[in-house]
Amino acid sequence: MKPFPIKDPIAHIVWKRDRLLALDQRLLPRRVRYVACRTAEDVARATKDMVLRGAPLIGVAAAYGMVLASRRGRRQLERAGRTLLRARPTAINLKHGIEAMLDAADGVPDGRLTRAVEAAAVRFHRQDVEANQRMAVLGASLLKKGSRIITHCNAGALATAGLGTAVGVIRYAHHLGKVAQVYPCETRPYLQGSRLTLWELMQSGVPADLITDNMAAHVMKTCAIAAVIVGSDRIAANADVCNKIGTYGLAILARHHDIPFYVVAPTTTVDLATPDGSRIPIEERSADEVLRIFGRPIAPRGARARHFAFDVTPHQLVTAIVTERGIVSPVDGRNLRRVVG
Amino acid sequence: MKPFPIKDPIAHIVWKRDRLLALDQRLLPRRVRYVACRTAEDVARATKDMVLRGAPLIGVAAAYGMVLASRRGRRQLERAGRTLLRARPTAINLKHGIEAMLDAADGVPDGRLTRAVEAAAVRFHRQDVEANQRMAVLGASLLKKGSRIITHCNAGALATAGLGTAVGVIRYAHHLGKVAQVYPCETRPYLQGSRLTLWELMQSGVPADLITDNMAAHVMKTCAIAAVIVGSDRIAANADVCNKIGTYGLAILARHHDIPFYVVAPTTTVDLATPDGSRIPIEERSADEVLRIFGRPIAPRGARARHFAFDVTPHQLVTAIVTERGIVSPVDGRNLRRVVG
Repeated sequence: MKPFPIKDPIAHIVWKRDRLLALDQRLLPRRVRYVACRTAEDVARATKDMVLRGAPLIGVAAAYGMVLASRRGRRQLERAGRTLLRARPTAINLKHGIEAMLDAADGVPDGRLTRAVEAAAVRFHRQDVEANQRMAVLGASLLKKGSRIITHCNAGALATAGLGTAVGVIRYAHHLGKVAQVYPCETRPYLQGSRLTLWELMQSGVPADLITDNMAAHVMKTCAIAAVIVGSDRIAANADVCNKIGTYGLAILARHHDIPFYVVAPTTTVDLATPDGSRIPIEERSADEVLRIFGRPIAPRGARARHFAFDVTPHQLVTAIVTERGIVSPVDGRNLRRVVG
Repeated sequence: MKPFPIKDPIAHIVWKRDRLLALDQRLLPRRVRYVACRTAEDVARATKDMVLRGAPLIGVAAAYGMVLASRRGRRQLERAGRTLLRARPTAINLKHGIEAMLDAADGVPDGRLTRAVEAAAVRFHRQDVEANQRMAVLGASLLKKGSRIITHCNAGALATAGLGTAVGVIRYAHHLGKVAQVYPCETRPYLQGSRLTLWELMQSGVPADLITDNMAAHVMKTCAIAAVIVGSDRIAANADVCNKIGTYGLAILARHHDIPFYVVAPTTTVDLATPDGSRIPIEERSADEVLRIFGRPIAPRGARARHFAFDVTPHQLVTAIVTERGIVSPVDGRNLRRVVG
């Protein structure tokens, strides 16, 4: 593959063989700090605590976590698989990363276990990087010159091992001169939009104006939006799309305004074993993460909150799903299987 | 009128004849502090800086601002009207409060100017209190037992001179045993939902779970929501509803989920001189208010943002408008004029 014309803004995971360095995304954009994970448990904790996040990235990190565990033998490898899988329930890439490593370990002599798993992890990592590049090219083909785009959460380089999914498409389309303006939604409660996506876009020189999540409908009505482009944490067999909380609402608003709604996700995000979106477990995180911003309370003492971390967008609301193997459109289970197959 | 069974949680404006004390809503719920306004300019500044906010309340405060100006004579009164009107562009109640005072001053001998304007301001204030009580009763009649309700921003006591509009309805319905659960949206960027509405609901013992704005669609789909109830800053002659940014999106989401969408607003919010929503000026405030939370940056240095403070909901998306003079439904210009007269 020839060198891709756009690059990652920053190294977000670095494999050092005895440890995985993970950029602490909770501190971005104010501070750049790496957390060293020396065991699979370290990787699981970093995933759970959102040091690293983004469905494709936590899949790749889990693969490296398995390499670290493999040093302690086959039983530890299997145990690590279970520990890593529990770190976060919604993104299926985690499971796919772990299973690819267990497959690689299968039937390999004990003495070559780590070598085999490490080779598989590096391959899994490289596949994600390449998938991002292919999705960027395919996704950008859907956009016309002068596009104004809304995106949500961070489906960028920081969410993957490579360029990113939705943001990869946006950056590549910008490279082709097709992007007039991007409106990243800030994405409460974790503010991935303002902290991460906006930062990535600014690093790449893409014109971007932050909006609060509740401005999306007004912006769709008044700012000539050409497309909404998001990532995904899991796509069910019927093509229902699970993604960061707020995605489902954006899809309804896009439909109301007759704006195309694109999902960009590698095939590792597809979960053919889950028949439809209603069966995807929606992580409910701590209410405290809603009731505080950077540790400071935003609500009265004793207040209660819900913290649904994801939602499900029915496939009928999605205009196209862009994968590295092709574009699924119209979006339904049959077309999804045809492309992912 | 016999005593109303529910009370304000706190005094939010207090008229002291030589000054108006305004509860500083920017500090709630952490601190209770009053700002003393001794001139109309003080009232205008407090309005602009959002010490006090909420369409009905800024109308009443402007009326008292006019009383303060009237002490300095008729020319100062007229000048104060222009200054106060400029404080915020969207809420029409401001204009109605000012005009009612100018009408009261008209033809009154100079020596009785302040007395006449003060009597009018106290009357305007009392009318808002009574309007809230009537709307609470009318609005609660629309709800069934066991209702789960989404509300947005703060259309509560803090937004009015009395019980509140949308929150008044919710509190009265709760008093009647009709409310199972309320989900206030936090309402970025100013967090009126988490800081003010949630606080009012907690003070009144109404069960409430805060949600981020982007959770509304998921909550509508999964939490059996009976109604969305909001206030308004201006209602055009065709019954289009201008309200806090995010309202328009909620109305689309409610329609998608077949959930009634109610607007509760006194007739001082209706602006028959504005033919439709497209003519309502939408205040665009400082980007910095989006880029910071409690003064702390949430985005990279040099980031840009949009800060639309309001949006317009087309009347077709509104199930009913509850005013103190009656319920407008179906919602259109003819029915609005019939009720508002």
